[in-house]
Amino acid sequence: MTQTEKDEKYMRMALVEAREAMERDEVPIGAVVVSPRGTVVGRGHNLTEALVDVSAHAEMQAITAAAQTLGGKYLQDCTLYVTVEPCLMCAGAIGWAQVSRIVYGAADDKRGYHTFTSKSPFHPRAEIIGGVLGEECAELMRTFFKSKR
Amino acid sequence: MTQTEKDEKYMRMALVEAREAMERDEVPIGAVVVSPRGTVVGRGHNLTEALVDVSAHAEMQAITAAAQTLGGKYLQDCTLYVTVEPCLMCAGAIGWAQVSRIVYGAADDKRGYHTFTSKSPFHPRAEIIGGVLGEECAELMRTFFKSKR
Repeated sequence: MTQTEKDEKYMRMALVEAREAMERDEVPIGAVVVSPRGTVVGRGHNLTEALVDVSAHAEMQAITAAAQTLGGKYLQDCTLYVTVEPCLMCAGAIGWAQVSRIVYGAADDKRGYHTFTSKSPFHPRAEIIGGVLGEECAELMRTFFKSKR
Repeated sequence: MTQTEKDEKYMRMALVEAREAMERDEVPIGAVVVSPRGTVVGRGHNLTEALVDVSAHAEMQAITAAAQTLGGKYLQDCTLYVTVEPCLMCAGAIGWAQVSRIVYGAADDKRGYHTFTSKSPFHPRAEIIGGVLGEECAELMRTFFKSKR
């Protein structure tokens, strides 16, 4: 499997999470954390409404879950897949966790971290890849927000 | 009581939280969320080691607690007091929660949000006040990190 195929495989898992959020009437964003050996060590989807908690974003759930699975709060060798560009809060958490590879689907020009930052919030050696299954990830968001209008 | 006296009163409560963190060998940062009527609706201190979770910062704990207390995730009329300038993650969470007043003690030029942002992460009308009991808040941090060397 090429790296691109691998990235799409895990992004599809993040999309499964995003669809679960959608079914619960939550903003449809999903995330998975994958170990260097290719094991999913954490997953999550947006649960801000259900948990009455602004911090219950997909990435936060997945990072917390991964830390529990691995028994340590640093995820240096892991890849985080998330269907939408992380917000500032999640980017900060990803930085604290020292995640070394961040792969996201759709860009978010309004709430994504890049709109607010002047300096990378991630680990200095982190690799950031956007646009993986980006259209599919964006479409899910459009469908959700259209249904809310 | 003047506003300054009020701010110092609540910052002292945040300092009580910070000292609790210190006693648990956690980075000594504490936070409280106060309603417009002056009631403490959420409090918390850093618990990243105990919870094995990079996101368990004082502000995150206090915001989550306040949302539970108030039964809603938006804290528009509340003031958040925190002993040290919020990091990027916490600033993002404070923004999502629409906290209207943010009062912090010590500045943090290394990890504080202002080092990373080009645009305010907070609600557009939020008021931000730094330096309340700043020296006391900073001294606690210095003592902690000196003990770690």
